[in-house]
Amino acid sequence: MTHQEDGVSAADDGTSSGAKIFALAQKIYPICRSITGNGVRQTLREIGAHISLDVHEVPTGTPVLDWVVPREWNIRDAYIKDPRGRKVVDFNESNLHVMSYSVPVRRTMLLDELKSHIFTLPDQPDLVPYRTSYYQENWAFCMAHRQLEQLRDDSYEVVIDSTLADGHLTYGEYFHRGESDDEVLLSAHVCHPSLANDNCSGLALLAELASRISQMRTRYSYRFLFAPGTIGAITWLARNEHRVSHIKHGLVVSMVGDGAGPTYKKSRQGDAEIDRAMLHTLQHSKLTPTILAFSPYGYDERQYCSPGFNLPVGLFQRSRFGAIPQYHTSADDLSFIRPEHLGESFRIISEVIDLLEGNRSYYNTSPKGEPQLGRRGLYGAIGGDKDAAAANMAMLWILNLSDGHHSLLDIARRADLPFPVILKTAKVLERHGLLAPVR
Amino acid sequence: MTHQEDGVSAADDGTSSGAKIFALAQKIYPICRSITGNGVRQTLREIGAHISLDVHEVPTGTPVLDWVVPREWNIRDAYIKDPRGRKVVDFNESNLHVMSYSVPVRRTMLLDELKSHIFTLPDQPDLVPYRTSYYQENWAFCMAHRQLEQLRDDSYEVVIDSTLADGHLTYGEYFHRGESDDEVLLSAHVCHPSLANDNCSGLALLAELASRISQMRTRYSYRFLFAPGTIGAITWLARNEHRVSHIKHGLVVSMVGDGAGPTYKKSRQGDAEIDRAMLHTLQHSKLTPTILAFSPYGYDERQYCSPGFNLPVGLFQRSRFGAIPQYHTSADDLSFIRPEHLGESFRIISEVIDLLEGNRSYYNTSPKGEPQLGRRGLYGAIGGDKDAAAANMAMLWILNLSDGHHSLLDIARRADLPFPVILKTAKVLERHGLLAPVR
Amino acid sequence: MTHQEDGVSAADDGTSSGAKIFALAQKIYPICRSITGNGVRQTLREIGAHISLDVHEVPTGTPVLDWVVPREWNIRDAYIKDPRGRKVVDFNESNLHVMSYSVPVRRTMLLDELKSHIFTLPDQPDLVPYRTSYYQENWAFCMAHRQLEQLRDDSYEVVIDSTLADGHLTYGEYFHRGESDDEVLLSAHVCHPSLANDNCSGLALLAELASRISQMRTRYSYRFLFAPGTIGAITWLARNEHRVSHIKHGLVVSMVGDGAGPTYKKSRQGDAEIDRAMLHTLQHSKLTPTILAFSPYGYDERQYCSPGFNLPVGLFQRSRFGAIPQYHTSADDLSFIRPEHLGESFRIISEVIDLLEGNRSYYNTSPKGEPQLGRRGLYGAIGGDKDAAAANMAMLWILNLSDGHHSLLDIARRADLPFPVILKTAKVLERHGLLAPVR
Repeated sequence: MTHQEDGVSAADDGTSSGAKIFALAQKIYPICRSITGNGVRQTLREIGAHISLDVHEVPTGTPVLDWVVPREWNIRDAYIKDPRGRKVVDFNESNLHVMSYSVPVRRTMLLDELKSHIFTLPDQPDLVPYRTSYYQENWAFCMAHRQLEQLRDDSYEVVIDSTLADGHLTYGEYFHRGESDDEVLLSAHVCHPSLANDNCSGLALLAELASRISQMRTRYSYRFLFAPGTIGAITWLARNEHRVSHIKHGLVVSMVGDGAGPTYKKSRQGDAEIDRAMLHTLQHSKLTPTILAFSPYGYDERQYCSPGFNLPVGLFQRSRFGAIPQYHTSADDLSFIRPEHLGESFRIISEVIDLLEGNRSYYNTSPKGEPQLGRRGLYGAIGGDKDAAAANMAMLWILNLSDGHHSLLDIARRADLPFPVILKTAKVLERHGLLAPVR
Repeated sequence: MTHQEDGVSAADDGTSSGAKIFALAQKIYPICRSITGNGVRQTLREIGAHISLDVHEVPTGTPVLDWVVPREWNIRDAYIKDPRGRKVVDFNESNLHVMSYSVPVRRTMLLDELKSHIFTLPDQPDLVPYRTSYYQENWAFCMAHRQLEQLRDDSYEVVIDSTLADGHLTYGEYFHRGESDDEVLLSAHVCHPSLANDNCSGLALLAELASRISQMRTRYSYRFLFAPGTIGAITWLARNEHRVSHIKHGLVVSMVGDGAGPTYKKSRQGDAEIDRAMLHTLQHSKLTPTILAFSPYGYDERQYCSPGFNLPVGLFQRSRFGAIPQYHTSADDLSFIRPEHLGESFRIISEVIDLLEGNRSYYNTSPKGEPQLGRRGLYGAIGGDKDAAAANMAMLWILNLSDGHHSLLDIARRADLPFPVILKTAKVLERHGLLAPVR
Repeated sequence: MTHQEDGVSAADDGTSSGAKIFALAQKIYPICRSITGNGVRQTLREIGAHISLDVHEVPTGTPVLDWVVPREWNIRDAYIKDPRGRKVVDFNESNLHVMSYSVPVRRTMLLDELKSHIFTLPDQPDLVPYRTSYYQENWAFCMAHRQLEQLRDDSYEVVIDSTLADGHLTYGEYFHRGESDDEVLLSAHVCHPSLANDNCSGLALLAELASRISQMRTRYSYRFLFAPGTIGAITWLARNEHRVSHIKHGLVVSMVGDGAGPTYKKSRQGDAEIDRAMLHTLQHSKLTPTILAFSPYGYDERQYCSPGFNLPVGLFQRSRFGAIPQYHTSADDLSFIRPEHLGESFRIISEVIDLLEGNRSYYNTSPKGEPQLGRRGLYGAIGGDKDAAAANMAMLWILNLSDGHHSLLDIARRADLPFPVILKTAKVLERHGLLAPVR
């Protein structure tokens, strides 16, 4: 394990990480996941091939905050067969065809009755919708509307070979210990089946990030959580209430493989360091980000930002959830995500982590008047910087604002300079004894 | 007396109240009011036919704050007669023809001398202006400029049959006791003569509002004040200094019968609950309101918002005072105000009162993670709401922000949802034990 | 010495002061100044003809904060002579021709070698640049690029008859004692040679201002500093650390003779009284000012606003430094500055000083309700004001906001009225016993 002084983002320009993330997303895409069951376990095994994941199994019936861990759902097969024995809907073709948590069925019924158990998207007639019914016992199929319209008024054999029984809720956790007990939480939901962007992309990105960070000496400790949406986050929070106070920054990561956005939804606190770090990083990128105020609708930031926890956890995405036609349909397949977008998302999150790692407050050790930079060879001559003017301004800003009350991020924002320029310059000034860190 | 849970604004859509308010305004329009005298008493008798008004008589010479109650003014008749015995100006035609507080006159004089005692509006030659001289002894007539120009250079008989003598200043007060000693003050000036919008409209609206509130069980106590401008408010304040600390919210109401605005001038505090309540209500109305910062010029909010009191009292109007051609002229007659505008003004003020009544802070009793709404039958199924999505968002916002530090109004603003939706949803959550009021 | 109640700005409309300031700027323009040496002494003698200046001499080698007073530089003559004995560059024509702090040279060299010691401005080929090398021993000539291009490839006699030796750093100080020990600091750099706007204009303006203030009884004490840039301010701060806490307001003054701007750069504090005073004054002028946030690059506000001092000192200019083609070139000559612009700059700074002198907080002595202004003859009848409406509003605003927490400047900003109107009105109210100053 070596300390990489240049941070997570320095390793590559996102190209090689993008390819690795895409490869893992490809691998976990076909697995039929839900909020419990073997699909989650299989997914965590694939992620565990990259980092040594702790897999937790929590029994059905365990009380977790206001909730109870539900029964475990597993499915082997499902289809609708027409009178000629032809499978008109087949779970083996796409796991979206069965509503998640569908109870077992083995019946023959007329189309009219069957229709009350079929979801389609009349406005997107070629797409299969994604539907769930976790907390209300039911069964249903999902299919393309155009296909439904072609079904004859006939009798169909309907089979869902599933089980809903006492078992476990499964989630994976990877913890990287840093110099400090203060933690950064990175969380992705593991419950969606074959939806590539939502959230194979997020799971794979965090796996790659965990792998990268595991090679580094870091200031913060890092906790990666791969858990089912809502009930998974609630289960983790219920079992880790005593640890929650260590979480100083956090991100929920989903839909990071398309080319839109990026979109960042701020934490409930609204001006937490993670919010300011993400805003600064996005504003100094070449992208056109969308910044959203916190709202209590979305992904697991809803749980982390509930008033009893109020953690500084934001949501990072490319497209905004719900705002795109592919959302929760079969169109969210592997063609919707691309290595270069995954690499770009990875680079942004890495830069934010580097910012958090490097963001400290300093005292100017020569605070009365400007120190004589020329005598120290500092003026107009910082390292091999291309932009000496920016470096000079960075020095002046850091010295002027390092009164113990401004972090380097505060200074970067005030100076309107990218954080890496400020960080690099601060390190030079610190080496010359002109800055001392606030303890 | 029954508790109307749905509040003041629920009784009608403003139509029937508009008609009632207009009828009362019509009745008090012809009366010759000033800051003292029988016109005020007669007006209060008309208002008293609707609510059991306390009428206070304060003797001339009583010191009130920096002021002294002036002598009482009464007028029986006044006219200007031309040499042929024709009344060219007649008080009986309009009480605007005599400057308020004109001392008695009974003389014959040439037009040239008379002219120095005549006010006209050369730019609005058909209108009679409204003028007063309360604290400087004087007399004058007001007339249309076009009529003045037609007067011949002749000798005129001038009669003002008035008295200015020790007596009383009169004001009316209606107090409705609520659950709490905390008061809402509603104040309208009773000193203007035949000006329909300014302020027969305000007096009549408050009479109707008092009548409505008198039938209700309320959280706040309500104090309605019908008093002459400036000296009346000052007199009330002088006699009630010990009660002033009970006033938690207040509105001065004037010019509420025309179709413009509405206009709301904020209290001196600028962000008092009444200010936020009014802004929220107006922003969620279909009107195009004008919001003004406090300034020390206007109506009796000048007195309530003087620095020694600094009460949270704003000013509600339709047209802004001084900003319309009818202001303080004979054009401010009954044709300038309309039942539907009076009804609309009534509805807005009622909604604001309902907001104040319902605005509390709550604790989410299940603040860690989201409570499981589905198990309680709450998700997507609030009462018979048309807009289930808004109701769901309202639930999530209320639960997320009910940390004891956000009132329902704060939450409505943050959620950008109308206060009634938030209030209704909060009551549902409270019934399910998910909210507990902050004591 | 008489107290001029109407303040510094009342003496003239800027015309006569503009002429006086221009005359002094003209006189000091030809002198060859640098950060030390006889040029500075001669300049201070000229300024001392107007006010009794304290001239301080600080020996070479004296430690001052993080710096050390450098050796003293003096120059008698310098030229480049071509083989025919013709001076192609001559210090006697313009002291810009020699880089400030050039060490002595007396050699003959080929054009190629000479060129590495010549600065020109290829983009402004007719102008001579201004260059310095205070802390790195070197020598150079500055000349018009067009002239350099005409020099033949030949051998030249190069003479710089300068001395760089132990001596002193010289600065001038003028102190005017007011009623209070609280000080206003006014500072101009004295180190630039023949640059008219930067900063003969600032030196001459402050000399005239000091002369004017010396005739007055003032509330504040005033400290005028004529010192070399950077090292001079640092030297003064090092020798006066114990006095620094007395400085309540300050301005650095430079480039005040051209017709652009004005430009005001706020102090590091950002909302200090000097910042608010300047903003208010500029916003109520007929000019189109540019207001800049503080940045740590510029003139000696860099030193005064270093974090160890953090004094409320802003920068007043017409053109913004660095933003004009004349900046630090021979085009910054006497034709670039004009008496009327100097007079206008003088008037603005004088108005700001009058504002600081007059800015106090008061208590309304009759804070409950409005006081009866009519009884006191105040309503509509303030002095001989042209604008009685503005005066009435000024009275109402002052009475409403004089709760001990609003200064007259706060009130002027809130009322959107010029400070002089508010000040004059407050004095009237104070004479009538309606205002009492906060002690």
